[in-house]
Amino acid sequence: MKFDVSPLREQLLGDLTEKVAVAKERGIGYKLLILRVGDKKADISYENSIKKSAEKVGIDVKVTAFADTAGESEILSEVNRGNRDEGIGGILIFHPLPKHFDVEAIDSAIQSEKDIDCLSPLNQWKIFTGQGKIMPATAKSALMIAEAMGDLEGKRVLIINRSMVIGKPLAMMLLDKNATVTLGHSRTKDIPGLAKDYDVVVYGTGQSRWVTADFVSDDQCIIDCGIAFDESGKLTGDVDFDAVVDKAHLVTSVPGGVGSLTNLLLLDNMFLD
Amino acid sequence: MKFDVSPLREQLLGDLTEKVAVAKERGIGYKLLILRVGDKKADISYENSIKKSAEKVGIDVKVTAFADTAGESEILSEVNRGNRDEGIGGILIFHPLPKHFDVEAIDSAIQSEKDIDCLSPLNQWKIFTGQGKIMPATAKSALMIAEAMGDLEGKRVLIINRSMVIGKPLAMMLLDKNATVTLGHSRTKDIPGLAKDYDVVVYGTGQSRWVTADFVSDDQCIIDCGIAFDESGKLTGDVDFDAVVDKAHLVTSVPGGVGSLTNLLLLDNMFLD
Repeated sequence: MKFDVSPLREQLLGDLTEKVAVAKERGIGYKLLILRVGDKKADISYENSIKKSAEKVGIDVKVTAFADTAGESEILSEVNRGNRDEGIGGILIFHPLPKHFDVEAIDSAIQSEKDIDCLSPLNQWKIFTGQGKIMPATAKSALMIAEAMGDLEGKRVLIINRSMVIGKPLAMMLLDKNATVTLGHSRTKDIPGLAKDYDVVVYGTGQSRWVTADFVSDDQCIIDCGIAFDESGKLTGDVDFDAVVDKAHLVTSVPGGVGSLTNLLLLDNMFLD
Repeated sequence: MKFDVSPLREQLLGDLTEKVAVAKERGIGYKLLILRVGDKKADISYENSIKKSAEKVGIDVKVTAFADTAGESEILSEVNRGNRDEGIGGILIFHPLPKHFDVEAIDSAIQSEKDIDCLSPLNQWKIFTGQGKIMPATAKSALMIAEAMGDLEGKRVLIINRSMVIGKPLAMMLLDKNATVTLGHSRTKDIPGLAKDYDVVVYGTGQSRWVTADFVSDDQCIIDCGIAFDESGKLTGDVDFDAVVDKAHLVTSVPGGVGSLTNLLLLDNMFLD
């Protein structure tokens, strides 16, 4: 059966709109600062999509765009300006940054409460220890969907992704919910056979529709974090949705699944206690 | 079959002795500074065991013992003295520290190259990202043993421990070796049934001899990180060694397994590049 993300999305939209209104009244942390270097197509398109989501919930967005030739120190001083401005609740820097930049220094310069993309070592370390509040948006979306699909306590969850933006943080967050968590990846053997043993499987490889009905067991919940394009250029996920939807207990679609919550969750990271 | 740790231990002893000799000649990083607050029996006994290992490889140990009533600032200034002393290659602070101390501030004060117990957020974060060099000694010992038991690429490994000193860092290190890694714990269901599906199982709960032959499949390698005592006060691990040794392909003993490498690996953390 298809997992319908819209109730989660509506709930998030409502809660977030309320939080923004409160923040605006206090004049604290209601603005988002976006830093962009150059004008790469992908960055502009992401920027527009963030702006659209921000507008929906009432967040003001300020974009500071730098020329391709900008120096590291210009970026750093804008980050510091953003850190000092109490109206700004989140600072988002588009990556990849130019190769000659000290990216770690720039990411670490963001004040940890404003680091809504969870780029700083401190925020990532907190996730590792299980005390994290700010989470990478895709991992948070997968977690939220997994929880909505059913209680995670004692469940067996397989994640096919070991990155710092999906697999690793999601594994830590699922452990915190008392799930038993497996991290798999490109070198994992016999993924179809393995996947069948799990209550919940999260896919995030970015290969189009490689997960077929052979991977699915009864009562299984499937969360698709993949972003891929098929031969005809159509947006798809890792999962062959049509082949899987009748067999799986619940499965998210792409588009319309994990990705429909990520912008809102990114923005929600501005308003954590 | 019992996994004999002594060849690994001999190798470590030899390599470490050589590294210490080189460091002594250069006058850099050959001394260990131990900070102890109070004189708890467990601390004294651990201190003596570290001293013995250090002596074997030629490391000079300096113990700074504080009264139970010592203040945080005294500890911090000794840490800073140790950071500045180029003869000192490692600083070891016995935990738990008195409850009213800001433990995170003290742990974070240790210069990251001298933080041989991997207590600082920065060193733990590096493990999370997969770039870590300094590793908690028990996790490192389990990893070293697992690698000696056989190639880890594509192997399925189960770890029954989700702490920051064993399960989590070990999982990250095993992912880096391209193993498929599962983290289980006290809320994991049907551990005997689950364990049978794995090539390598690492136990670390500290419950005496709960792992019986029922948990073991053919060709399975078992690494016992448990430290427990049975009813007669005898040191044991998680694994009922006698019941398992003929069934498992390889199994470590307690005592004589993981724990026989930990002191040396802790000291080895003084000499990483």
